[in-house]
Amino acid sequence: MTIEARLSELELNIPTIPKAVANYVGYKIVGDWVIISGQLPFKNGEILNPGHLGATVSLEEGIAAARQCAINILAQLKTAVDGDWSRIIQCIRLGGFVASTPDFTQHPIVINGASDLIGDVFGDKGRHARAAVGVAALPLGASVEIEAIFQIR
Amino acid sequence: MTIEARLSELELNIPTIPKAVANYVGYKIVGDWVIISGQLPFKNGEILNPGHLGATVSLEEGIAAARQCAINILAQLKTAVDGDWSRIIQCIRLGGFVASTPDFTQHPIVINGASDLIGDVFGDKGRHARAAVGVAALPLGASVEIEAIFQIR
Amino acid sequence: MTIEARLSELELNIPTIPKAVANYVGYKIVGDWVIISGQLPFKNGEILNPGHLGATVSLEEGIAAARQCAINILAQLKTAVDGDWSRIIQCIRLGGFVASTPDFTQHPIVINGASDLIGDVFGDKGRHARAAVGVAALPLGASVEIEAIFQIR
Repeated sequence: MTIEARLSELELNIPTIPKAVANYVGYKIVGDWVIISGQLPFKNGEILNPGHLGATVSLEEGIAAARQCAINILAQLKTAVDGDWSRIIQCIRLGGFVASTPDFTQHPIVINGASDLIGDVFGDKGRHARAAVGVAALPLGASVEIEAIFQIR
Repeated sequence: MTIEARLSELELNIPTIPKAVANYVGYKIVGDWVIISGQLPFKNGEILNPGHLGATVSLEEGIAAARQCAINILAQLKTAVDGDWSRIIQCIRLGGFVASTPDFTQHPIVINGASDLIGDVFGDKGRHARAAVGVAALPLGASVEIEAIFQIR
Repeated sequence: MTIEARLSELELNIPTIPKAVANYVGYKIVGDWVIISGQLPFKNGEILNPGHLGATVSLEEGIAAARQCAINILAQLKTAVDGDWSRIIQCIRLGGFVASTPDFTQHPIVINGASDLIGDVFGDKGRHARAAVGVAALPLGASVEIEAIFQIR
C-alpha cells in the first residue's frame, strides 16, 4: 500500500506548509537526510492542549498533542519531498520534549502518540530511534514539542 | 588492545539486548551512522539512582547513573554491530539529560560518568561532541538519560 | 562578500579556542558534517547573564546570552575549518536550551539571538533547522546553551 493510500485510510489530511522565510526554517535537506525543526502541536492555528503533564494536561491530552506534533512533522516532510511520499526511505529519529512537572514519569507514553502515528503511516519504514524527556516549559506554553530526522531519495 | 580486551580489563560485562519490536527501536543504522535511542540507567531491570540531582540524588549517584546509561548504550551498540566491536570507528556525540532542580549547576560532572566510560573503552576513538542539560523530569523517574551517535564500518 | 568581510562588518571578533583534550571535545568532524558540542554563553571567561528566563533574566539578557553562545559556536567552527571560513557550506541545525521557569513561553525569541547572528554572518547558507525548549537548569547556572551542526568542505 502506498503512503498516500495509507494516509487516506487513516483519514489523515496533511496540510501543505508555506516555505519558511526566516533565518530558521522548518526543515533542512542535507544529502538524503531531512532534519525537521521542533514541531509544536498547532492545529487550525492554535496550540492543542497547552500546559504541563502532571498538572493541567492529562495523559490522553498529552498523547493527542504528540500526535498533532507528528502530523505537523508530516506536513514539513511532505513539503520537503514536494508532495511525493514515495521518496521517503525511512524515519531515523524522533526527539520528544514533554513539558512536565518534576514528579511526572510517563513521558514515553506521551511521545508514543507521535511514534505510533509514524508507525501507522510508514509501517516498518517508520521504526525510529528516539529520546523522550520532560522539560520545564515549551514555546507558547505547548505541552509537547517533537523534532525528527527522515531519510529520503 | 582490542575493544573486547579493554572491556574485559575494565570488568565490563555488556549485556546483549533483545531486538526491539515497537514502533520505536533501540538504535537505527543509516549508512555508517548508528543513532542510539535515549538510554535510561537500567541495571538488572531496575532504574539505578532515580530522583533529581540537587534534591535526593547525590553527585556520586548521578555519575553512577550516567555510567550505567553508557553501559546500556554499549549494549545497543554491541547489537548494532552484531557483537563485532572492531566495526566501531568512533563515538560522534552524546546527548545527556540530567533530571535536576533549578539551582543545580554540575550537569557536566554528572555526564562525565558516561563520557569517561566511553573514553576508557574506546580511547581516542571515544572522544565525542556533547550536550549536557538539566531537565524537569525523565521517564520512570530516572535521574539521567543519554542518547548517542557512533560511526561504524 | 566573504564570511571574513562579513564578520569584520559586524565587528565580530571570533576567538580561537584551544583544541580540547578531555574525553569530550568541542566539535567532531564526520565526513562533511561538523557536530558542535553544546556551547555556553562564556564571554571573557565568565557566563554572560546567568539565571532563569521568567525569573531573574530578562528577555533582552536571554537574547544576548543566546548570541554569545552563537559566537562560541563560531569559535568552534573556525577551529574545525582551520580558520578558513570559505570551507563552510551551510548551517544545518541549532539545538537551543533555555533555562526557564515553568510559565515562561518565549523560548523562540531567546534562541533568535543565535539564529539571527548565524543568519547575519552566513546569509542564505545560515538558514537552519532548529529546536528550542525550556529546561530546568543548565551547566554553571547559564541561562542558555546551544549546540549546532554545520556542513563543510
